[in-house]
Formats: sequence, structure tokens, C-alpha cells
Amino acid sequence: MQATAEVKKILSYYEGENPGVKGKLCQMLMTGKLAGTGKMIILPVDQGFEHGPARSFAPNPAGYDPHYHYQLAIDAGLNAYAAPLGPLEAGADTFAGQIPTILKVNSANSLMSGTAAKNQAVTASVDDALRLGCSAIGFTVYPGSDAMFDMFEEIVEMRKEAASKGIATVIWSYPRGEGVTKEGETAVDVGAYAAHIAALLGAHIIKIKLSTDHLMQPECQKVYSEQSIDIASLAARVKHCVQASFDGRRIIVFSGGASKGSDAVYDDARAILAGGGNGSIIGRNSFQRSREDALDLLGKLTDIYLGKA
Amino acid sequence: MQATAEVKKILSYYEGENPGVKGKLCQMLMTGKLAGTGKMIILPVDQGFEHGPARSFAPNPAGYDPHYHYQLAIDAGLNAYAAPLGPLEAGADTFAGQIPTILKVNSANSLMSGTAAKNQAVTASVDDALRLGCSAIGFTVYPGSDAMFDMFEEIVEMRKEAASKGIATVIWSYPRGEGVTKEGETAVDVGAYAAHIAALLGAHIIKIKLSTDHLMQPECQKVYSEQSIDIASLAARVKHCVQASFDGRRIIVFSGGASKGSDAVYDDARAILAGGGNGSIIGRNSFQRSREDALDLLGKLTDIYLGKA
Amino acid sequence: MQATAEVKKILSYYEGENPGVKGKLCQMLMTGKLAGTGKMIILPVDQGFEHGPARSFAPNPAGYDPHYHYQLAIDAGLNAYAAPLGPLEAGADTFAGQIPTILKVNSANSLMSGTAAKNQAVTASVDDALRLGCSAIGFTVYPGSDAMFDMFEEIVEMRKEAASKGIATVIWSYPRGEGVTKEGETAVDVGAYAAHIAALLGAHIIKIKLSTDHLMQPECQKVYSEQSIDIASLAARVKHCVQASFDGRRIIVFSGGASKGSDAVYDDARAILAGGGNGSIIGRNSFQRSREDALDLLGKLTDIYLGKA
Amino acid sequence: MQATAEVKKILSYYEGENPGVKGKLCQMLMTGKLAGTGKMIILPVDQGFEHGPARSFAPNPAGYDPHYHYQLAIDAGLNAYAAPLGPLEAGADTFAGQIPTILKVNSANSLMSGTAAKNQAVTASVDDALRLGCSAIGFTVYPGSDAMFDMFEEIVEMRKEAASKGIATVIWSYPRGEGVTKEGETAVDVGAYAAHIAALLGAHIIKIKLSTDHLMQPECQKVYSEQSIDIASLAARVKHCVQASFDGRRIIVFSGGASKGSDAVYDDARAILAGGGNGSIIGRNSFQRSREDALDLLGKLTDIYLGKA
Amino acid sequence: MQATAEVKKILSYYEGENPGVKGKLCQMLMTGKLAGTGKMIILPVDQGFEHGPARSFAPNPAGYDPHYHYQLAIDAGLNAYAAPLGPLEAGADTFAGQIPTILKVNSANSLMSGTAAKNQAVTASVDDALRLGCSAIGFTVYPGSDAMFDMFEEIVEMRKEAASKGIATVIWSYPRGEGVTKEGETAVDVGAYAAHIAALLGAHIIKIKLSTDHLMQPECQKVYSEQSIDIASLAARVKHCVQASFDGRRIIVFSGGASKGSDAVYDDARAILAGGGNGSIIGRNSFQRSREDALDLLGKLTDIYLGKA
Repeated sequence: MQATAEVKKILSYYEGENPGVKGKLCQMLMTGKLAGTGKMIILPVDQGFEHGPARSFAPNPAGYDPHYHYQLAIDAGLNAYAAPLGPLEAGADTFAGQIPTILKVNSANSLMSGTAAKNQAVTASVDDALRLGCSAIGFTVYPGSDAMFDMFEEIVEMRKEAASKGIATVIWSYPRGEGVTKEGETAVDVGAYAAHIAALLGAHIIKIKLSTDHLMQPECQKVYSEQSIDIASLAARVKHCVQASFDGRRIIVFSGGASKGSDAVYDDARAILAGGGNGSIIGRNSFQRSREDALDLLGKLTDIYLGKA
Repeated sequence: MQATAEVKKILSYYEGENPGVKGKLCQMLMTGKLAGTGKMIILPVDQGFEHGPARSFAPNPAGYDPHYHYQLAIDAGLNAYAAPLGPLEAGADTFAGQIPTILKVNSANSLMSGTAAKNQAVTASVDDALRLGCSAIGFTVYPGSDAMFDMFEEIVEMRKEAASKGIATVIWSYPRGEGVTKEGETAVDVGAYAAHIAALLGAHIIKIKLSTDHLMQPECQKVYSEQSIDIASLAARVKHCVQASFDGRRIIVFSGGASKGSDAVYDDARAILAGGGNGSIIGRNSFQRSREDALDLLGKLTDIYLGKA
Repeated sequence: MQATAEVKKILSYYEGENPGVKGKLCQMLMTGKLAGTGKMIILPVDQGFEHGPARSFAPNPAGYDPHYHYQLAIDAGLNAYAAPLGPLEAGADTFAGQIPTILKVNSANSLMSGTAAKNQAVTASVDDALRLGCSAIGFTVYPGSDAMFDMFEEIVEMRKEAASKGIATVIWSYPRGEGVTKEGETAVDVGAYAAHIAALLGAHIIKIKLSTDHLMQPECQKVYSEQSIDIASLAARVKHCVQASFDGRRIIVFSGGASKGSDAVYDDARAILAGGGNGSIIGRNSFQRSREDALDLLGKLTDIYLGKA
Repeated sequence: MQATAEVKKILSYYEGENPGVKGKLCQMLMTGKLAGTGKMIILPVDQGFEHGPARSFAPNPAGYDPHYHYQLAIDAGLNAYAAPLGPLEAGADTFAGQIPTILKVNSANSLMSGTAAKNQAVTASVDDALRLGCSAIGFTVYPGSDAMFDMFEEIVEMRKEAASKGIATVIWSYPRGEGVTKEGETAVDVGAYAAHIAALLGAHIIKIKLSTDHLMQPECQKVYSEQSIDIASLAARVKHCVQASFDGRRIIVFSGGASKGSDAVYDDARAILAGGGNGSIIGRNSFQRSREDALDLLGKLTDIYLGKA
Repeated sequence: MQATAEVKKILSYYEGENPGVKGKLCQMLMTGKLAGTGKMIILPVDQGFEHGPARSFAPNPAGYDPHYHYQLAIDAGLNAYAAPLGPLEAGADTFAGQIPTILKVNSANSLMSGTAAKNQAVTASVDDALRLGCSAIGFTVYPGSDAMFDMFEEIVEMRKEAASKGIATVIWSYPRGEGVTKEGETAVDVGAYAAHIAALLGAHIIKIKLSTDHLMQPECQKVYSEQSIDIASLAARVKHCVQASFDGRRIIVFSGGASKGSDAVYDDARAILAGGGNGSIIGRNSFQRSREDALDLLGKLTDIYLGKA
């Protein structure tokens, strides 16, 4: 499919990248109902690792079956489906070529003790992504964790290998750990910093959380005030994070967090759109609803990004 | 031997896997008295590592000789025999081709101090498995241990290498360590989580312990109650763990623990069968009995899985 | 362009080095308004990592865009532009061949907790430098940190690889950590030691901070007094650090630190020139000013090194 | 030399092993005065590492010269001589082909502080063994140490490499460290466990200490009593350890410890013979005597194993 | 140049070594005024790492220039010049082939905090030694440090690589760290142990400090008294350390420590000669004097080893 001008402009920002990687970014941007708009909705299903099977899938038990999520992403016309090794393998053949996939290559879980390092385990490889026909690898970093440098070094190595094999890299940049307060995890100064770090590390797609108007770092409280950085509205904060992502030269998508009412999900999307973000990555708010409700919600969300709602 | 429809269905679930690995799974599923049923009984003898020689073999001293276990597994018509490097090597030539073997590639022992990491040592390699003609490697992970991420990264690497060489992977997923209480080690929420983690890591066969109706994680107590997840009977808990294993798309077998009366062993098997599990992995309850008693017990167990008892 | 006698003399000091590396040093020394003089001004933009995006770029928001810095370095006629992977990639194609670039291959950030090791993460590779057409890699070591030996071993390995691929190495030698007091970080005995360590490690270009007349090490207080080492003026201290850099056989440039008034910047440069240093590496004092002001300041600085101001 | 039936039987136990390794075992079993009997006496000289030069060699200063030990082993008609890299290198040419040698590839020393890990350093490689014409590598593990898993992983790797190059592996299995009491280091339950662990790890020859009738592990106190395991005499304890070594399918030799009277050494040997052990590994009790006394003692010891004394 | 009988005898002790390494030892033994005598004087200049530039070179500022030391070693007719990577590179071309060089491949420094591991960083490689035409690598181990096993494993690896490439290995064996008292660092029992450890690790040339008559280890106090080991004079202690170096089968040189009066330096040399040591490695006592004084001192020292003074 002929790429649109908007998509071509986005691809042009990846100046250092080879055609293999650009082709994968193009594939994701040209898939689904948002194809060609430069906007994206991604379905991530790694909550089985993070929270365990029952907390993830009992609200909608169809989700215990990995095939369910492939099909949901396809039927909702999303841009991509992201999951760990096991679930991707469980549907790799049945759904081959029908939806771009992102192999989540590291993971944490909620059985970790308080003394465990704030880290994740690398649970899949670039060659697994190749073998399963994935468009990208996904990797979480925890800026602020005492393990953050190890995580940075891991993703830098994997990103290099992935790019050399024509696979794109999505970085989940989630502040967490010894250097970050609980409130700071969603503070806007920390969120913008997290986006910037992902960009500096060479992410092709940046994934961060939506942020509050809290400022965690004392030096930032001073600078944000002196320079009058607008962080009053959610849209303004999205805009600030987009700016921190090389002034819009990197694709940035936002996650919504725990499941909540549909209207809150729509409001988030409108703010992302208004702030110049590229889209939503939406897990529990889709697969913990019934399939029918999820398709409704994702349809409405798509309409928002299409400017129709 | 022509694979049965049941076995073919099971093999079809391993969508991402190559024919080499599927062939090994087929070999185990098509061996012994349960051949073709999709059910399995495996004899594991790694207690020499875990508990030392006297505690393992003094009750039935014939078991000091590694040949004894090969012969027992063959004579009882089991699907496979699992052991560490040394014992497999001690009979590899005598019993070549007569029973599928699983090389247990990591091990702990009871000389570990309280300050030692809750971990295991990697004590054999994929190439050892190839050299000894094994069908699979077996690897233990301890979800909840502060060393769990290291263990995950080890098995992910070994699984990748094994699969590339046409060898299947069995994951022993045993909750243990800093993040898990003693009671939590067999709690059903933790057990289902352990099964799910093994599946996410790419296990071809999942081995967990039978669980109690205890719920360790506070968030799970809430969810299990709200979603009315049935955990009242052992069969219901088996069913829940099967669901957590990609809704039945992965082979899951259950271990019985310390030696106990035959009736208790039979009751376990009936619950596993009723809950949709794939079978039993049964060590001390077989080799710590006399050979005659063990053959009786394993025969009866086989009959249960065949629906004859 | 024909190298000047001054540049040829400098290159002759690198006796152990291959023509590939010497060619890259020559390229940097023969670029910009200071071409051929043996003096250098380098623009480093790694503050996004160190201090985050808002603290770095909000004072002059044009700097959020990586293209801004490439263009500033070119328009100011500097010798080279240094930055981490992400920003270099964002302009690698647009500015290919127009300005020598230095890939900063390790980085820290201000989200680190007090318990984190005083270290940096390796965030890019020598192959990235090759791929992006860079002239050199840049690496920070923290003499005095308990992680210093790890950092030394990392740069020794990377320097070896870089040299074998015809790429030069710049070492940022910044005393910091458990073995250094706050005042000691800029003490002249520690600064000269830091320069010497960089030289011993095989740096082609040494980057240190300008130092105060404080002496941190008791043994040094004794020696500096006994041997009447002149550390009274900034120029004398620069001269001492040049001496510590193999008596002038290695290129050494000085960084200016936090943004300050233009006159202070000029005074620094005059002292560097007087003391025999090779130049300035000047980040926040250039890119946090408006483009116009920055070009003014850099022009004046160039004139100082040309002996015109 | 034609191998005896006894040696052929022993070799037949190594079912998983290649002809190269079996050839080396055969070489050691067919050398010296005990050739063909299935019994062995080995001279180990690694006390220079463990206790330093003066404590090791001052009682018989001829032993400072590495040639002394080669010659002693040859003249006494022993099966093999074991030493670290340096001493083997110092005589490798002079004594080439005259006595099988075992390269001790890891070592500890008595300058270790109380805070150091209970571990050893790997001080030689399999390729060194090849280069020096050795028959085997020797490696110490400390079951019970918090570093034991690292040691297990090291020897498993080295054993694999050694076997692939036709070199046999001797494991010194010496309980020590955080999980073992002082009395427990020579307790019979722990000693049998140590022998079993060496066998599980794939040792071709197991070396343990002679044990006392102490039982360290509470679970073992129970089992040994319930199962009436005979540990009353030294011979009975040897027999128990032989049983723990795959019921006699692995060669097991015993070390005597600190120097003591000749009669005590003879009594040990008689117990080893009676219990079915394969022989003695005897260091300080030989080389700390004068050459004449040592030859006397080793001659008498040989006679005991030949059933002549 | 035809090697003398004395040199040929020394070379014959290196039985396990290849002609490449023996050639390098021969080269060092056949260079300078002591050529052919089996004695050596080596100039080591790594104090810039250890103590920093001012403490090392301010007493004789000509030493800031790396060329100074090359020339001093040549003009004094020494056997070899040892230094880290940077300084060797700074003169590698000018002095190529004029003096054997030893690349010091690991280094510590005095900015280390009290909490840092008692270790050194590996700061150069065997390939660097090849590239720079060196005869040997030099490596420091700290027997008694909790990091000693890591250091042993590093040098064992590097020695193996160096030997395979025809380069000799010099081990600086300097007791230090948690297992050694301050007085123990130069105790004769510890010094002899340090020499023995270097020999066991495969050093071709051993470098230790001259020792006092202190005995640190209680077990040694007992043995030295019982065995009447003569440690009364410096010459006797040198003789004991030579004995600990495989009874004279390894070259051993002694370092003099901090700068001191010429007579003390001469007395040390006479004791080394009388005790059968192979020579001196003398840094601060040569390069911290004026060139004229240094040449005088080194000339006198040479005469002592030639038996002329």
C-alpha cells in the first residue's frame, strides 16, 4: 500500500535508520483503521506477566486464550498487537501476516519481593522476533531504578541487533524505583524526562504514561516556573512530552493504566490528539471488557483519532 | 507409530515451533501405556541433588544404582524418565532408545545455607542433552525468588538453544523465595501464576505442584471472590491452572510431593484427570517403594488416566 | 585540505596510532574557523541525559530539536559536535559530512538515587559511530568512584575497538564519587590526576573541568608545596594539567560548567590559551542562549583562540 | 598394555563417555604398581597454594623443587601426579610421558580473609591440560558454600570442554562454607552427599575426605536411624560413600588430610579397601617425609591395596 | 646475539613454554649492561597511575614526558622498561626496537575510596602489547584481597593469551587487602607466599617486594621456628623467596619501594645478589632523581650485579 504523505514525513525523521526498520514502522503506520494518519492504537497484553492470569483475564475469561487477543486486535482494526513470547507463539501460525506484532522482550511480575531489584527479566530475543515475524521488539526501562543502567545497556544492545535485522524498537519508559517517589512516577517533569531518555537511547516508538501536573525534581520546579512551561492541562502535558521526544521527531504513544470508565478513556485520547501525541496503547481497558464492549470502545477511540468523535 | 488425533491436536497448539521440537513432544506422547491419549506419567529422579543420597535411596537401596530407574520407567510403561547429567550418563548406552529421557539441567541441594540465593546451578547443557539422546531439557524456576530474573534469563536462553537443536523444554515452575510465604508456595493463586509464567516463558511442558485453596496475594483474594473463581476442589484448582496455561494450549503435569499413601496418589490423579491436566510426574512415591509396589502403583495410576480405575 | 605544520606536529605525538585514527584527529583539527591552529572548540549536547529535557532546553526551546545543534555547530565554525545516539541519529542524514561528530557512548542522569553506583550506562557502540559517520567516540570516566575500574575497563575495550576501526577516542575525565570530596571534584591536584589517568588509558583527546587552587589529597598538599608547583592562577593550573597530559603530547580541552556570563567564558578561554590548552568544550553556555547570542559568544571565543581578542 | 578385566569393567560404567576420556581413565588405571587392579594411589601437590611454600615444603626442603614430586610419583609407582599449572610446567618436558598428570585447575589459599567468598580461583584451563599432556583436570567444589553454585557451573563447563577434548575430570568434593558446620565437614551424611553431588555433576573420578560417624543434617539423623544405615566403622562409611557414587559405578578415592603417623595411614587404606573404595590420594603424608620414608610408606600402601599387607 | 650458558640454563627451566615466549625472555636477559649474566634491572614507570602525576614527576619534571623514561632506560643499559598503555604509545615509534618493553596491563590509583575493592582495573590488552612490540605484559595481583580470585582469573586468562602469541608474563605479586595486615604486607612469610603464588599461576618473571623478618601467619610463626628457616638477614630472606619460586626455576626480581638514599639502594642490590635473586626493578629511586644522578645510581647498581662493586 502506498504510504501517505503524513507517514512519509514521520519516516523521514528516522535519519540514521535502514530501510528494514523504516519498512516495519511503515507497516505499523499503514495498518488498520488509522492507516496513513500517523496515529496508532496498539493492543498490549503483557499483564499476565505483570499481575498474573486471574487478575488479568478472570474479568473476561475469553482472554485466557491467546488467540482471543490476536483476533480482537484484527477485528478492531488496530495498528499492532504486543505480547510476550509464549502468547505470540501460541497464535503465530494462525494469524501470520494478519496484524503487525510487537514481541515484548522483557517482563517483571508481582511475585517480586521488596528486596528484589527494580528490574525486569529479558524473556525473549531478537531472533525470536524474527522467527515469529514480528515488526518490533518492546522493552521496558525503569528510569530512576538502581538497575536502570543495566536496563539501558540491555536495550541498547538489543536495539542494535534488532535494527541490524530490520526490526523496530518500542521502549516502554516507566519511571520507577529508588530515585522516584510514588507521586513522581506520573509527575510531568519525570514523564517528559522518561520520554527524552527513550529518545536518547534510540527508541523508534516511545511509550510513556500520561502524567499529572506534579513536579518531582526540585530543580524542575524552579525551571518550569521560570520558563513558564505550560503543564496545566493534560493536552499541554502531552505536548510537553512530545517536545521532549526530539520536538516531535519520534513517534510517542501513551498508556492509560488500570481499567476505568469509557469516558475517561475517550478524554485521554482527545488530550493525546490535542497535544500532538501519536496515539494510545490500551490493554486492560480493552481486553477486560467483553469483546463487544471492547470493540465499541476501540471503535470510538479510532473515531476520535480520525477526528470524527 | 502413527500419532493419534488427540496427540495431533495437542501438537497443533505449538504454532511457533519447528518439526524437531514437535517430534520430541510426539515421541513422549506416543510412548508407554498412555501412548496416544494425550496423558503422561513421567518418572523424575533428581532427589539425590535435592535431598542427598541417603534420604532419597535408603528406603529402597536398589535406587542407588542409576540403572534401576531407567528399568523402572520402562517396565512401568511410562512416557519419560527425567534425571540430572550423572545418572543419565550412567545408563545412556544400556538403555539407548528404550525410553524418552529428560535431562534436568539445573539443580539445588539441601546443603545451601540460609544466606544463599534461592537459586539453582546450571549443571548440564543442551549439547549434553543432544549427546545423550534426550527428548527434552528440564529446568526449574522459582517465581518469587530474588534470583528469579536470572533463572528466567537462563531458561529463555537454553530453551532457545534447545529448540534450535530440536529438543523440547519442560519448566518446573516452583514458587519459592523472598516474595512467597511458606503457605503461598502451594496457594492456588500462586500456582496458577507459576503455570502462566512457565507458559509465557515458552515452556512446551509445564510442571507445577498441586495447590491448596489458600490465596496468598491480597489483590487475588479480591479478584477470586469478585469473579467467583471456583477453587473449592482439587479438580477445580487443576482446571484453573490448566486455564492459566493458555486455556489448555500447553501440556501441564502435576507433581505429588513427598511420599504418601497410595490412595492419596490415586486421588491426586483423579483430580488431575477431572480438571483437564495432562498427567503426573511422580518421583519419591514410586522409587522409594519396592520395585514391586512401585509397579503396582504406577499400573494403577495408568489405569486411572486410561479411565479404567 | 593540506594539514598545517602545527597539526602535523600534534599528530606526530600519537606514535602508537594507525592512520585511520590520525586521519580523524586531523579532520577535527582541520575543521571550522580554528582549522590548522591546533586549537578546538567543541559543542557537546548531552545535558538532556544529565539534567533532563526541560532544564536543558526550556531556556531556548529551539534546542528541543536535534537539528538545531548540528546547525549551530556548523554556523559557528566549530571543530566538532558531540551528542548521544538518539540526537545524532535524528540529523545524521541531513548534516552528513558537514561537521565532524563525536558519539557520546555512555551517559548518566539525574533520576539516579543516592544508593545507585556512581557510574554511567553504555548507551551506544563503536559500530553506531561507524554507521553514523562519526569521527570519535566520547566516554566519561569518574576517577574516585567505586565504579571507576569498571568504567576504565569499558573504555579501554571500546577505545581498542574504535581505534581498530579508525575512530578516535575522547575521554571526559570527571572526578566524582566515594573517593572525592565535593570541593575535590574541581581541586587542581585531582584535575591534573584526572587528565593524567585519561592519558594513561590511551585517550586521544582529554576533556577535563577547569580547576580551582584547592588541593584535596594530603600527600599532594605536601608535594605541591615542596616542589613549588605554581597553581595560583587559572592559566598556571591549565599549564599544570597540560604537563600532566604527557607534557603536551595529548590534546586537552576544558569544559566550562553551568551557564554563566559571557565575560567569564572569555576569561576561561584566555586562561586555557595562556596555559597551553587546546581549547574549549562548551555546551550550556552556548545552546541555552538564543541562537544569535550563542553565535556572538562562539565567534568571540574563536577570536580569542585566534589571538584576535 | 592390554587392560585387565577389572579395568574393562570399570570403564564400562562410563556409558555416556567417548573413547578419548575412557582412554585417559584406562591410562591412569593401567599405570604403576597397582596397574590393572582397579585401585589407585595419586600424589597431589597443591598445598603450596593452600598453605604456602614454607608450611608445605620446609619439613622436607627437597620439595621446593617441582621435579622432586614428579620423580617421587614415578619411583613410588603411583598412578598419577596432580598439581597446579606452575609446577606441572616446570617439569612437563623432563618427565613427559613418564607418569599420568592431573592439572589442578582451581585453587584457594590461606591468605583469604574471613569476608572472602568460600570459593576458589580458576587458575588453569583445559587447553593448558592439553598442551602439557595431562590425563585429567582436577577441580574442587565446596558443597555448602554460598559460592557452590558458581563452582558447580564452572566445573560443568570445564568438564564438558575437557571431555570434548578427550580429557578426564576429577572432582575434589569438599564440604565447606556457610551451610556446613566444622564438624559437618567430615560428617558421613555430608561426605556421602558430597560424593553423590560429584557423581551427579559428571565426575569421572571422585575425591572426598574420609568421614566420621557424625551426622550433621537433622533429616539425616532421622533417616540413618530409621533405615539402619551402618556407619559404625570407617570401612562401613567408605562403603556408604561408594554406594552414594552410583552404587560403585564411579571411581572414588579418599584423601587422608594432615600428616600423621604411618600406621594411621595404613589403617585408612585398609578401611578404604574393605569398603570398596578405589584408593588413596595422599599428599602431605608422602612429600613431607624424607624421600626414603615416603617411598617406604607408599610401598607399604601399595602392598595393602595389592592385598599383600 | 648468542645467548650465554647462564641464560640458556635459565631458559631451560621454562619447560612448558613455547619458543616465542622463551625468545622474549632471552631478549630481555640478553639486553643492556647485564646481558648474559642472568641478572636484570628493569625501569618501571606506573607511578603516574598509582600516585598521580605531581607526586611522581614534580621532583624531576623531565619525567612528565614519556620519552624521558625510554631514553633513561636505554642510556642506563637496563634490560627493560615497563609502563602502562598511554606512555608506551607516546614513544612506541621513536624508540621502536631500542629497548624491550613490558606493557603494564592493570593499574590502581590513589583516588580509590576505602570502600572500593582492593583491585586493579585491566587497562590494556595482549593485542596492545603485540601492536606496540612489547616483550612482556605485566600484571599486579593482590594476594590477601577479597578480589584476589578475580585478579588470579584475569591474569591466568591473559597469560594464556599472551603465551599463545609469544609474549612473556611478569607478575607483580603484592600482598594487600582484607587478609593481610599492614605489617604483613612486607612480612617474609607473606612475601615468600606471594612469590610462590605467582610461580603457581605461571609467571615467567616474578616481582615482589623485599621483606622484613616479620611473620604474619600464626601457623608460619610455628613452622619457621620448628624448621629453623633462616630469615635473619635480608639476603637470607631473598634466598627464602627464591626457594619459594620453584627453588630458583623462575626469574625473580625485587622492588625497592619509596625513594631513599643511594646507599640503601645499593645495600638492597647486594642482598638480592647474595640471596640468589635475579635483580632489581627500580622506579621512583631512578626517575625521581635528576637524569645525571639516576644514571650514576643505575651504573653503580649494574656494577654491583656484575660483581664489580
